Amino acid sequence: MMYQKDQDKQKSLLAKSAIDYLEKGMVLGLGTGSTIDLFISELSKFENLFSSLKIVATSKVSAKKAIDNRMNVVGPDKCIEPDICIDGADEVDRSLSMIKGGGGALLWEKIIAYRASKRIYLADESKQVARLGAFPLPVEIIEYGHEWTAAAIEPLFKSVQLRKETTGNIFKTDSNNVIYDCFIKDEEDTANLDFNLSAVPGVVTSGLFCSFIDVLLTCRDGEVAEITGKENVFW
Amino acid sequence: MMYQKDQDKQKSLLAKSAIDYLEKGMVLGLGTGSTIDLFISELSKFENLFSSLKIVATSKVSAKKAIDNRMNVVGPDKCIEPDICIDGADEVDRSLSMIKGGGGALLWEKIIAYRASKRIYLADESKQVARLGAFPLPVEIIEYGHEWTAAAIEPLFKSVQLRKETTGNIFKTDSNNVIYDCFIKDEEDTANLDFNLSAVPGVVTSGLFCSFIDVLLTCRDGEVAEITGKENVFW
Repeated sequence: MMYQKDQDKQKSLLAKSAIDYLEKGMVLGLGTGSTIDLFISELSKFENLFSSLKIVATSKVSAKKAIDNRMNVVGPDKCIEPDICIDGADEVDRSLSMIKGGGGALLWEKIIAYRASKRIYLADESKQVARLGAFPLPVEIIEYGHEWTAAAIEPLFKSVQLRKETTGNIFKTDSNNVIYDCFIKDEEDTANLDFNLSAVPGVVTSGLFCSFIDVLLTCRDGEVAEITGKENVFW
Repeated sequence: MMYQKDQDKQKSLLAKSAIDYLEKGMVLGLGTGSTIDLFISELSKFENLFSSLKIVATSKVSAKKAIDNRMNVVGPDKCIEPDICIDGADEVDRSLSMIKGGGGALLWEKIIAYRASKRIYLADESKQVARLGAFPLPVEIIEYGHEWTAAAIEPLFKSVQLRKETTGNIFKTDSNNVIYDCFIKDEEDTANLDFNLSAVPGVVTSGLFCSFIDVLLTCRDGEVAEITGKENVFW
């Protein structure tokens, strides 16, 4: 169990370290979440750097935060390609597969990361797991017929649950889809799970990110550790 | 080459024949397209029958036509399951795989057919092909980053083309996504193609319908032929 104070300190350390991967003039795919919020704050201190970047945001929330910090947010258009993508994660296992999408931005995060030349993920120690699945897997589903689609994927999980706002309203993603939070079976092969989910009509994508990490910035004994392959994994 | 007059006659014959598969009280998944328009007209003659049905529509257009004909259109909710789905096709090959989605309704068509107990497809002779692909394959893609997603799937095809309205505006599906019409390579294994496309972030679904046909109603020498398995295929 990690103290919140330590976790906040780690997130802040990771956010600072991620700045080192940026170069002037880059197109930056900007992630979503509490660690990325800290990264945006950190980046805002380097006006010379951030004013030279084009930023493609993985959520409306991150786009707004970047704009509020006078950064140059652009659309995901044909004429640009992200040189780098910097994002967080909810869980990372020993094969460097991740669960993402706790904040509901999984689809845009995946679209942008899929196109980026280099993908950097920031994950404090609390995200290091032996097996994915303590965190429920978000699955993004087309609103039309979502109850049928959920029934179709339910046998793949222990249980599935439609995500709602605290107000009780159904949560909608930035692409206006719904999310089911799905509890992974203990024996599940998560690499195949993403593939099998995608094949179900109505499923847009899942929060399983397999083979996306080029660099994982995480923490070990309170220091930042850079992981570039499974052979570096220490947890 | 088939004369338009013959094709219209065949569509009409198929629409009439499909009525025989309906029973009072059924939940009907209602397809989309010119053959289904004829089916709706035909069904509207049988008030005793249609007034007993609950209809789930695969498009806003078909929903409107059914409502205009005083039919009972309902949403794709948890508490109902389609007993039967009746839809058209753009191409059917000898293994009973189809290309659908010329009208842009592929996603809802697939969601509803996937959930239906029995799937009936209507395809006049002009739709019978040895190999799929004279008709371009519609691929439904999330609007955000669609140019990147299109670039990611382009190597799988001869070429891909963003679908536009005759006005020049980008065509939007009923779920507010875009469509790329994709020209299939000659040597393509279409069963794997659907699977591989679905795995690309940003792809919602493709118009490839493999293993969806329970009954194919088609024509042979101007008469309706009922096909229930590959062994019945005559073209």
